[in-house]
Amino acid sequence: MRPIGGEIELKLTDFKVYFTDSGRSSIRLFLRSGDNRYKKYLLPNYFCEVIENIFVEEKITYSFYDVFEDLSIDEDYINTQEFDVLYVINYFGQYIALDNINLDNKILLEDNVFFYDFTNQNNAKQWYAFNSYRKISTLADGSLVKTNLTIDVDKILKEEASFTNEKYRAKAIKYSYINKNEFNEQEYLNKFSYAEELLDNQRDVYMISSKSLYLLSISSIDEEIRKKRFMKLKFLFSEFSILENVDNYSFFIMKILKRDTIKNKLMQSNIFLPVHWLKSTQDNELYNLVISVPLFENYNDDEFDYLINSLRDLLK
Amino acid sequence: MRPIGGEIELKLTDFKVYFTDSGRSSIRLFLRSGDNRYKKYLLPNYFCEVIENIFVEEKITYSFYDVFEDLSIDEDYINTQEFDVLYVINYFGQYIALDNINLDNKILLEDNVFFYDFTNQNNAKQWYAFNSYRKISTLADGSLVKTNLTIDVDKILKEEASFTNEKYRAKAIKYSYINKNEFNEQEYLNKFSYAEELLDNQRDVYMISSKSLYLLSISSIDEEIRKKRFMKLKFLFSEFSILENVDNYSFFIMKILKRDTIKNKLMQSNIFLPVHWLKSTQDNELYNLVISVPLFENYNDDEFDYLINSLRDLLK
Repeated sequence: MRPIGGEIELKLTDFKVYFTDSGRSSIRLFLRSGDNRYKKYLLPNYFCEVIENIFVEEKITYSFYDVFEDLSIDEDYINTQEFDVLYVINYFGQYIALDNINLDNKILLEDNVFFYDFTNQNNAKQWYAFNSYRKISTLADGSLVKTNLTIDVDKILKEEASFTNEKYRAKAIKYSYINKNEFNEQEYLNKFSYAEELLDNQRDVYMISSKSLYLLSISSIDEEIRKKRFMKLKFLFSEFSILENVDNYSFFIMKILKRDTIKNKLMQSNIFLPVHWLKSTQDNELYNLVISVPLFENYNDDEFDYLINSLRDLLK
Repeated sequence: MRPIGGEIELKLTDFKVYFTDSGRSSIRLFLRSGDNRYKKYLLPNYFCEVIENIFVEEKITYSFYDVFEDLSIDEDYINTQEFDVLYVINYFGQYIALDNINLDNKILLEDNVFFYDFTNQNNAKQWYAFNSYRKISTLADGSLVKTNLTIDVDKILKEEASFTNEKYRAKAIKYSYINKNEFNEQEYLNKFSYAEELLDNQRDVYMISSKSLYLLSISSIDEEIRKKRFMKLKFLFSEFSILENVDNYSFFIMKILKRDTIKNKLMQSNIFLPVHWLKSTQDNELYNLVISVPLFENYNDDEFDYLINSLRDLLK
């Protein structure tokens, strides 16, 4: 029997953690650390265009590899390329298997924006990974970085990003609109746009806000609800489904030929589904096909059923 | 039906949150803000002596009010006193009812070291409250501050306290000792003492460590297990019980006449129960009577039963 009482023991981890204001800032933090800006990067050709903007702004050398329609990646091509850093997006919460890729002396830069928490699944010797809480939770800002590399943490400014406060104010206005019939839709939409604009123009790396840290401390993910919803969607919409299962539930993604028509019709039913992603400089059929259904427990079962029924009607 | 999708709404709060490295630092942060150092404080005479040390070091004017054996406080006395700030400890996770105390134009300074999260139960117009995660979780450092007052947050140094890292190393050594039979007990005990010494000598207010923030983000409290354990202990040890119930479960506290004898005998069974608190400059019978039984789900049911049975044998 181990000792009971006293300070509680805790296993040592082989990675360090840092928090920044956003996924974008976490990418910049990596690019601005050590001599990373002089390295050669391989990026996936299915991604959020904001990533490429950052690489351009930071004057990084990069090229692309193919992502197939089943979200697997072109391993053979990658293995023939000369590069220093492999940028991998673990799409929609599923870790991509990298067993066939030679990562010797390479850095693995993992984009886990769909994950609440994540691990070094490939035991990469040189590993840098990050998420983005604001995409998958009520948090207005925040990104978790885990890495076994030396990072110039001084590059994280010791203050909160200005978009954060604006976004929390927009969220509060939306809350008052929904629950107290105060304000109007346009007011919170304008405020969200303004916050997004601030973020788009931001070049510095900030720390995560205290408010978001507090929300992190009191919130937890209900994996069971999310998994149940994922499975229900997979059963109902099997012909549109891409991923059999995922490691971290945030969205169920569907491949729909008339995606934009469906998306617009849903808006008439007060349902606003995100699209990951609309376009980039690269060609990939996925930009035209994919739509994402949120699984967040923040939506109650009635709301989720309403969403499902609306989708079913449109896809009949 | 509210809109589904898009940014998730969030209610505005009427308090701000901050994080420091420790409960002590959160007290210092308050005392060093605005003109708080010139105010008159009323402190409870049953408390951790570290608190008084801080008040002495910061050259604060303070006096004491009585805490009775049932952990209620001397309201009548408090109402006759002239003071600016009332320091209240919500003992062992129970909010003290302050309905009979006149808080007009007073500041309520709430010490919630036994709480994982807490609220402004008394709707105090001038409210500053804090906890201490390291007392009630696996975190090595960290304190949450909630307040509706203006605080000089610049007083929080933008770096991590040096005791934190030492404490995490001590926790790792204890982990290796328990799980891998590496190191020995003395090694982690020494390291814990050293970390505690660093904290005792620290005068600056630091931010909470990233590691602790990460642990906060992935851990959650199992209220159900804790409550069940609290009720079990209350049933088995009713004659020693002080509080009927609490608002936040971390410890079950008992009043035992031969407290020190029981505590020492438990140590022979590898059970190390904390004592809140051993002594201070003030007289209060509670210093000699109280012992605290942790309810943390970190201990499994077998370990908890072993603890209960050991206690029962000694209290027969």
